Amino acid sequence: MAIALGDLAVRFGCELRGDPATEVETVGSLENAGPRSLTFLANPKYRQFLESTTASCVILRPENADACPVSALLHDDPYRIYALIATFLHPPPAVRPGINDSANVAATAIVPSSAQIDANASIGERAVIGERVIVGASAAIGNDASIGDDTRVFANATLYSGVVIGQRCRIHSGAVIGADGFGNAPSPEGWLPVPQLGTVRIGDDVDVGANTCIDRGAIGDTIIEDGVKLDNLVQIAHNVRIGAHTAMAAQVGISGSAVIGRHCLFAGHSGTVGHIVVCDNVVVSGKTMITKNIDEPGQYGAAMPAQKMKDYRRTIARVRQLDKIVARLATLEKTLKREPTDD
Amino acid sequence: MAIALGDLAVRFGCELRGDPATEVETVGSLENAGPRSLTFLANPKYRQFLESTTASCVILRPENADACPVSALLHDDPYRIYALIATFLHPPPAVRPGINDSANVAATAIVPSSAQIDANASIGERAVIGERVIVGASAAIGNDASIGDDTRVFANATLYSGVVIGQRCRIHSGAVIGADGFGNAPSPEGWLPVPQLGTVRIGDDVDVGANTCIDRGAIGDTIIEDGVKLDNLVQIAHNVRIGAHTAMAAQVGISGSAVIGRHCLFAGHSGTVGHIVVCDNVVVSGKTMITKNIDEPGQYGAAMPAQKMKDYRRTIARVRQLDKIVARLATLEKTLKREPTDD
Amino acid sequence: MAIALGDLAVRFGCELRGDPATEVETVGSLENAGPRSLTFLANPKYRQFLESTTASCVILRPENADACPVSALLHDDPYRIYALIATFLHPPPAVRPGINDSANVAATAIVPSSAQIDANASIGERAVIGERVIVGASAAIGNDASIGDDTRVFANATLYSGVVIGQRCRIHSGAVIGADGFGNAPSPEGWLPVPQLGTVRIGDDVDVGANTCIDRGAIGDTIIEDGVKLDNLVQIAHNVRIGAHTAMAAQVGISGSAVIGRHCLFAGHSGTVGHIVVCDNVVVSGKTMITKNIDEPGQYGAAMPAQKMKDYRRTIARVRQLDKIVARLATLEKTLKREPTDD
Repeated sequence: MAIALGDLAVRFGCELRGDPATEVETVGSLENAGPRSLTFLANPKYRQFLESTTASCVILRPENADACPVSALLHDDPYRIYALIATFLHPPPAVRPGINDSANVAATAIVPSSAQIDANASIGERAVIGERVIVGASAAIGNDASIGDDTRVFANATLYSGVVIGQRCRIHSGAVIGADGFGNAPSPEGWLPVPQLGTVRIGDDVDVGANTCIDRGAIGDTIIEDGVKLDNLVQIAHNVRIGAHTAMAAQVGISGSAVIGRHCLFAGHSGTVGHIVVCDNVVVSGKTMITKNIDEPGQYGAAMPAQKMKDYRRTIARVRQLDKIVARLATLEKTLKREPTDD
Repeated sequence: MAIALGDLAVRFGCELRGDPATEVETVGSLENAGPRSLTFLANPKYRQFLESTTASCVILRPENADACPVSALLHDDPYRIYALIATFLHPPPAVRPGINDSANVAATAIVPSSAQIDANASIGERAVIGERVIVGASAAIGNDASIGDDTRVFANATLYSGVVIGQRCRIHSGAVIGADGFGNAPSPEGWLPVPQLGTVRIGDDVDVGANTCIDRGAIGDTIIEDGVKLDNLVQIAHNVRIGAHTAMAAQVGISGSAVIGRHCLFAGHSGTVGHIVVCDNVVVSGKTMITKNIDEPGQYGAAMPAQKMKDYRRTIARVRQLDKIVARLATLEKTLKREPTDD
Repeated sequence: MAIALGDLAVRFGCELRGDPATEVETVGSLENAGPRSLTFLANPKYRQFLESTTASCVILRPENADACPVSALLHDDPYRIYALIATFLHPPPAVRPGINDSANVAATAIVPSSAQIDANASIGERAVIGERVIVGASAAIGNDASIGDDTRVFANATLYSGVVIGQRCRIHSGAVIGADGFGNAPSPEGWLPVPQLGTVRIGDDVDVGANTCIDRGAIGDTIIEDGVKLDNLVQIAHNVRIGAHTAMAAQVGISGSAVIGRHCLFAGHSGTVGHIVVCDNVVVSGKTMITKNIDEPGQYGAAMPAQKMKDYRRTIARVRQLDKIVARLATLEKTLKREPTDD
């Protein structure tokens, strides 16, 4: 679909520098955009590519306008405007209603005629599928599960029985929602399984990344509020609550019964111990372990950044010597305190 | 199912405070239990909710009995008793024997009439399925695999060829058991694949979490002993042996040929390097990396806990200055040693 | 298949110590090899098992020849020779061409008669499957995806639409290739999804481990070059490029737009932040976080190794005291500097 820059400027509230009749029909990157394509500049790291951009038009902040050699759409938030225009130019594929012959839908399941059920998918008993839902190939929807309108469950994802998913969610392939939480009581004969009797309740506009796991609650439910975005390979343990619009990058792990606030950001490989509370607007850097409640918004970190092996080994050795270092310091302090009196 | 507290006390060996005729029929949490429900108090963190509990009865330690405003079942190990009673009140769903029409069972596979094979599952050639086994939707059981009685394999789990699973195991969705270990020999033309000729042997009463991976052995087998509990997204590399009743939380990674003892506990994101030995009864805290053999039972840790970004940056800077700090200390020590002789 | 040691020596370029007529037919470990079996000694850790080996023949370095109580094949790179001989004795199972009745192949897909499509697999529209490709049970191949000759996609793996896989790759179970990258723009109404319009392009001879995720690019493509080996549960974010022959162990996480060089090695749980560049021949140790570009080949590390809990707690406390330690040091230095002038 081709659209004139002038139309885009009006539709998305940008100031246009350039010919309003110029048309674009796709998006590209600053360095590699093809003809008739639009790109954006948000991260200053990519500022260096602006001068030689091959795009027809760049969405950027007003302060970068003069450096742009082609047409520009000016906006204070170029990444957001790019997201909107890219979605406008490349809308997600339309639903193709119908149930593939190889899919298996239980007689008691409710599947509206607007839904698309792909090859070898299975829909359990009494499951309720919303309007325009897509269930991908070999995805397994458990008994009594329910999926809100316009949600998409990708191939090979699994919803256990009773799981509740909101509207406009995207559950990526391999995601497992509603498996038993890790509940085992020690006993003289070994671990005793504790029945996991709650479920998982996911709000609207939630993304669950590929191979991400969200366990069902032990007694109450595990709750993912509206607008939460979970990347791939994330672990959400039983009875966790994730506040609205919080985003977690790949391989984050949230332990059981933790309560995470709204609008938080967790970077990759970070995580929490169980039974803690993190307030709203907390940003956690990569590989950071949260061991205590956080009740003050802001940024938190813990992981040492990489060093060359020689320096790294020295760092470890030095850290291990800290007791001795402090002892040496104390000896010096004692010596110095004594000396004046010795005079 | 409703049962009187008096009956529960007798059946599960507790002392009852309250009316033995009071009936309960479900379980709940201290804060949110509904009518006719039973809960427990084990973690002192939840002691604060006892006074205002809405449950009909609380399982707790004798020392908490006086603070309990409702009926109480007294026992020194309330969590274990809760596990037993909750399982009694809410037994796992019964097996529904039969092979779904959309499942694919190889002609040479052995599937007893007591087993339940769900939609779109596939059972490979010469695979042997035990009595009352459930194989979930789209699960794939490889050729020559064998599954012990009463084990449940959930939807979309995968068993590679030849894998051996014991009795009463639970293999959660997305788990992959028996994929090739990471065996590649460097060669001038790049990595050369090393055939992975062993298999995986899993004992009885083992839980394998969602999307957890257990690789087949390179020559001998990868062994998971009885009663081991693995949480979600755990990695067990080739030729590892995990001792009986050891539990590993989500995202733990055990490298190749490591031997882990019995009754160990690994917290989330912890792991080991390859070819090491960890003795019995070792507890490893979150994000800890084990780089050497451990031959003494006890607790081990390594990860720095989270700090506010400002403090974290300062910590990193200070750690990196340790060499200079030690040099300054040495200078001072030299100065002070010299001074007395200067007198 | 039985083969004489003399034949093996000629075929694989080793020097033989022992009777060339001795036959072997399988492989085993130094400690547990059965009769008529061959093993190898490469890791010095296993040198202790050489004297009492039960194998018929050991592949080892010339310097270990005299200590070998049985026949020996001498070579400077015993592990590589073992890989070649083990593959020769135990070749991967042959392809069994044909499409299982329960598989679902779109009418517009191209599946050559040499390919093997297993039970309940699905092949999307216009997908192109190469010669002798195996697609495992319940694997889902998206629309317009293409798979090169002799590649094997294991059970329950997922390829999203448009993904391109080279020749002789092994895509293990649960792997998800081409899911949407984690692209969300902040907006006053919450996160706005940014369309992920690129794809994933994987070269030849690439291994993708079980449950590993490789996201499609946001604008350009995510690229995995020839010969890359990814272990299980690895995360490769959108627009990453992994250089040829780089190997990554389990649970590694590479953030968006990172560019990783050729012949790198990443140990388990290590990772990078986004938008960084790592040069060729970099070795990263376990749990290390790379936060800046690396432009010098060599080894890098960051994680503290495990300590006993008491020592670990002390280490944390000491590290947290570093500011105070430095302050005490400065006080001493000031005192000492002042003292001489006081004299």
